[in-house]
Amino acid sequence: MSRPIFDTVAILGLGLIGSSLAHGLRDKGLASRVVGYDASEDVRGRAKALGFCDEIAATPEAAVATADLVILSMPVGAAGAAAKAIAGALKPGVVVTDVGGVKAAVIAKVEAALPEDIAFVPGHPIAGTEHSGPEAGFGSLFEGRWAILTPSERTTDEALQQVSDLWHGLGSDVEIMTPEHHDLVLATTSHLPHLIAFNIVGTAADMEEVTRSEVIKFSAGGFRDFTRIAASDPVMWRDIFLNNKEAVLEMLGRFSEDLAALQRMIRWEDGDALQDLFTRTRAIRRGIIEAGQETEAPDFGRRGAGDTGGPKSDS
Amino acid sequence: MSRPIFDTVAILGLGLIGSSLAHGLRDKGLASRVVGYDASEDVRGRAKALGFCDEIAATPEAAVATADLVILSMPVGAAGAAAKAIAGALKPGVVVTDVGGVKAAVIAKVEAALPEDIAFVPGHPIAGTEHSGPEAGFGSLFEGRWAILTPSERTTDEALQQVSDLWHGLGSDVEIMTPEHHDLVLATTSHLPHLIAFNIVGTAADMEEVTRSEVIKFSAGGFRDFTRIAASDPVMWRDIFLNNKEAVLEMLGRFSEDLAALQRMIRWEDGDALQDLFTRTRAIRRGIIEAGQETEAPDFGRRGAGDTGGPKSDS
Ligand SMILES: NC(=O)c1ccc[n+]([C@@H]2O[C@H](COP(=O)([O-])OP(=O)(O)OC[C@H]3O[C@@H](n4cnc5c(N)ncnc54)[C@H](OP(=O)(O)O)[C@@H]3O)[C@@H](O)[C@H]2O)c1
Ligand SMILES: NC(=O)c1ccc[n+]([C@@H]2O[C@H](COP(=O)([O-])OP(=O)(O)OC[C@H]3O[C@@H](n4cnc5c(N)ncnc54)[C@H](OP(=O)(O)O)[C@@H]3O)[C@@H](O)[C@H]2O)c1
Repeated sequence: MSRPIFDTVAILGLGLIGSSLAHGLRDKGLASRVVGYDASEDVRGRAKALGFCDEIAATPEAAVATADLVILSMPVGAAGAAAKAIAGALKPGVVVTDVGGVKAAVIAKVEAALPEDIAFVPGHPIAGTEHSGPEAGFGSLFEGRWAILTPSERTTDEALQQVSDLWHGLGSDVEIMTPEHHDLVLATTSHLPHLIAFNIVGTAADMEEVTRSEVIKFSAGGFRDFTRIAASDPVMWRDIFLNNKEAVLEMLGRFSEDLAALQRMIRWEDGDALQDLFTRTRAIRRGIIEAGQETEAPDFGRRGAGDTGGPKSDS
Repeated sequence: MSRPIFDTVAILGLGLIGSSLAHGLRDKGLASRVVGYDASEDVRGRAKALGFCDEIAATPEAAVATADLVILSMPVGAAGAAAKAIAGALKPGVVVTDVGGVKAAVIAKVEAALPEDIAFVPGHPIAGTEHSGPEAGFGSLFEGRWAILTPSERTTDEALQQVSDLWHGLGSDVEIMTPEHHDLVLATTSHLPHLIAFNIVGTAADMEEVTRSEVIKFSAGGFRDFTRIAASDPVMWRDIFLNNKEAVLEMLGRFSEDLAALQRMIRWEDGDALQDLFTRTRAIRRGIIEAGQETEAPDFGRRGAGDTGGPKSDS
């Protein structure tokens, strides 16, 4: 798998995902040459200094001019405009793919902008961290994770195979599904969890009777787990909610209904129903650990929280 | 700090917290002798085999008969009955303490059961993992964490000092507050997060259009973070919600109000408001990391999720 799959690869958007792709392609010999571009001049400068691309181009058109594969890895709200910017500069036979967390809306916008004879392979790696920017990337990010591809009418069999090979080369397994199904699955496993995490962190921050310092000090009781995903990039997440509105609102409705039932169990002190629910939820984690998608170590195997200073003495 | 603070310590309830206390007291030389008891015969047998106590008593009365400190470390719903069972067997001058996640309700029940001249020091270590049972314990669990003590009318200054010294000896810092304030702070930093985690895992498990196997496979998108705390002990959590009902319902009300506002932002596509909220929540995590209560490593420094088999090939 470690022969180059594409000759020249252009990556547009050099944040966490774009820079991880650049590292991974190079570490694994999957491309002969990687050209990077980012809308931010500051990011372009930092990416050049970090050196994970062979070249940093000054414009999107220059970045894609010689590319055999173009990877769109900017926030999904910017993908349509990015496709428009490169449409006239693409080489014949080029494959375009993306990594956006939403598929149906992005496909509509990107395909409206690209010439009809360009093969587009919509994709989404289920891998990430709460950090963003070009410094956050690392080549092993996609190892042992899933990449979802959601072919559209513009996806040729050959391009699908090549992009699939690329993800395999990066250490991922590949799953194929429709864009609509992707958007519903991810609303469940990613968008709703993020929404809830953003919300609970906001709620805690707004308490008057409990100080911010108390929330921070006693966060090891559970709260700190939520703060990780609530620290993810604000623009990326704004765009995901705006572009997967229907599925997110549907999941949110279900969540709120279930929460109302749970509230009722507490109000009426229905201990048996509470215990039943809490027993059922335990089993799901076991499944995730057995599927190799989670560590078995207690507390995520967290380390160093206490080492890096520890709580301040109370004296 | 490593001279014995108490001669004989009795620990009632030998699950995660009780066994961690036994390990910690021994590792750090904080007690001359540790006697353990658990309501479950099976757990008593496993604890004996694990050997973290000097003696496993067959009854609660026998466990406390020679004790200078008694630690109640069973689920909070069982603490009142446990206090009743030992009330007649306590040595004069003994100190009783507990580790329960709720304070006001537990104090009322325990103090109604104990003789009036027995010093009681209500306590709660803000430390734990999602695992339970005697095998889950380890002596460093409390290092770098906070222990909260919530003195009541039955708490003597001397007993408070001794129990405080004990927690310091286990590596914790100690904070003193009223039981009512504790219950509100913990409703925010622990009980509400657990409730929400149980709920979201339940909601995802009940989807018809998304299979259980898809939820598991693509959980790295955020969902898996919630499954950790939703895997905590069902009885312990049932008891916490039943015993801290008012504060939990109050927090739940605030959470739901905020969620309704967030839902509205998505429905009306108010991107600026979304981005503002997501930017605000990011800052809180920074505070938690700086306070030494969380690791800075991406993804909690998770390791081995991919190593232990990785996702099944899609072929
Ligand atoms: N983070 C994750 O966990 C994760 C996981 C899977 C997929 N994804 C997807 O990956 C994509 C990128 O996310 P990320 O985490 O890498 O974000 P990131 O770290 O915030 O980086 C995004 C970069 O794209 C740049 N950009 C914006 N518009 C652009 C354009 N038109 N052309 C070129 N560059 C542009 C941004 O520059 P400015 O700062 O100037 O805006 C920023 O440097 C998103 O679509 C997201 O849905 C993310
Ligand atoms: N887990 C945490 O993260 C955490 C953190 C801070 C404080 N706490 C508090 O610590 C206490 C114990 O939690 P844990 O996590 O150690 O739970 P655990 O692992 O489930 O262990 C609790 C043990 O107590 C036993 N037990 C029940 N009633 C008893 C009684 N009357 N006398 C003696 N033993 C009895 C249980 O036996 P059976 O199995 O037969 O019921 C079980 O073995 C709870 O009050 C909890 O609020 C927990």
